[in-house]
Amino acid sequence: MITLHGFPFSNYHNIVKHALLAKGLEFEENIVYPASEALLAVNPLGKVPAMTTAEGTPLSETSVLLEYLEEKYPETALYPADLEARAKTRQLMKLSELYLELPARRLLPAVLGNAIIPVETLDEVRAALQRGVSGLTELAAFSPYVCGEDCTLADIYLRYALAIPKLVGPAKLDWDVVAAVPGLADWDEMMAASDIAKRIDADQAANAGEFMAYVAKQR
Amino acid sequence: MITLHGFPFSNYHNIVKHALLAKGLEFEENIVYPASEALLAVNPLGKVPAMTTAEGTPLSETSVLLEYLEEKYPETALYPADLEARAKTRQLMKLSELYLELPARRLLPAVLGNAIIPVETLDEVRAALQRGVSGLTELAAFSPYVCGEDCTLADIYLRYALAIPKLVGPAKLDWDVVAAVPGLADWDEMMAASDIAKRIDADQAANAGEFMAYVAKQR
Repeated sequence: MITLHGFPFSNYHNIVKHALLAKGLEFEENIVYPASEALLAVNPLGKVPAMTTAEGTPLSETSVLLEYLEEKYPETALYPADLEARAKTRQLMKLSELYLELPARRLLPAVLGNAIIPVETLDEVRAALQRGVSGLTELAAFSPYVCGEDCTLADIYLRYALAIPKLVGPAKLDWDVVAAVPGLADWDEMMAASDIAKRIDADQAANAGEFMAYVAKQR
Repeated sequence: MITLHGFPFSNYHNIVKHALLAKGLEFEENIVYPASEALLAVNPLGKVPAMTTAEGTPLSETSVLLEYLEEKYPETALYPADLEARAKTRQLMKLSELYLELPARRLLPAVLGNAIIPVETLDEVRAALQRGVSGLTELAAFSPYVCGEDCTLADIYLRYALAIPKLVGPAKLDWDVVAAVPGLADWDEMMAASDIAKRIDADQAANAGEFMAYVAKQR
């Protein structure tokens, strides 16, 4: 059986978990935290999520896990069949990663703890997020899904990628990133209403205490 | 025909160019610089490389272009056929991107110009690169290629991703990142000896003056 290694408070963990659930695949969740021995055994990079495939291969990096699942289990496809449309879907996933999630993540230590963020970093993050906001405004369809009529990996990726800008935008940049993209707030509400999203959000809330205890122990 | 939009001094441009040449595909190079009108017309994110497919679809983001080319033109494959091995190949590409190229890139303004890098940033970059160095040491085969006997997209990606750590490591971190990974220096020399690499490196050198003039104009 597939094993997903990570923890339900992690937004990247939840991207892969959502994809597994959407594809109707059986899997078990092995709760591990970053850089733990249990995680290093399957991912030398020490990051979540990692996944052990049904063949026993340890893999890591969210986008790698998603591509693998799509190739290995093409039933209940989460990419469109048309190659140009597939590429557009991947483009929106990449945009969500590089210009929304990762830059916003740089401000996370200041929100979760008391880290001081240099003004140069704030400027860089703001510029990267502006690129994400403009790109999403230009490229996302929201009709009703990101790439059109069907829910794809672009929707799943964006939903959890947005968690960090939602948190750090208002707190550190005085900026509601979701409101800055026409249609994004409605889409976000629609996405939150699915049974899969509700289950993942409930699991995340249930894991919050344990995750915060892990963070506190790292200091 | 496929059009690759970008400039030969760009390492990301060269990843896609190398893949196009390795696959023996016909393409034309449209020389454009970041955020130019010509580039914005095909990529609202204003970044290179972008590509217009033979069907006329504008696409962007290096990894998106590579996946598209592999799916559309499966002859002369640059991924292994086995799905577990494909995922391992993607994992090494992602490692090259997230833990070698992108962190090192944050120090580029201090090498190309006179930007002052906060000490917090230097620490973050060093930690991310250490993750890349450890991961590469653990996961890359170098036998002789990154994933084994055949040259794959992991080799092509890593070759050009390394350009930035090579530049900023010694200059700003007093650290020879290539020497830190056993086998990497020999692999790098082997990769540089191919006809495709020589052509790309020559094109890059020829573009250096024009690129530096572009950079100077941005200040």
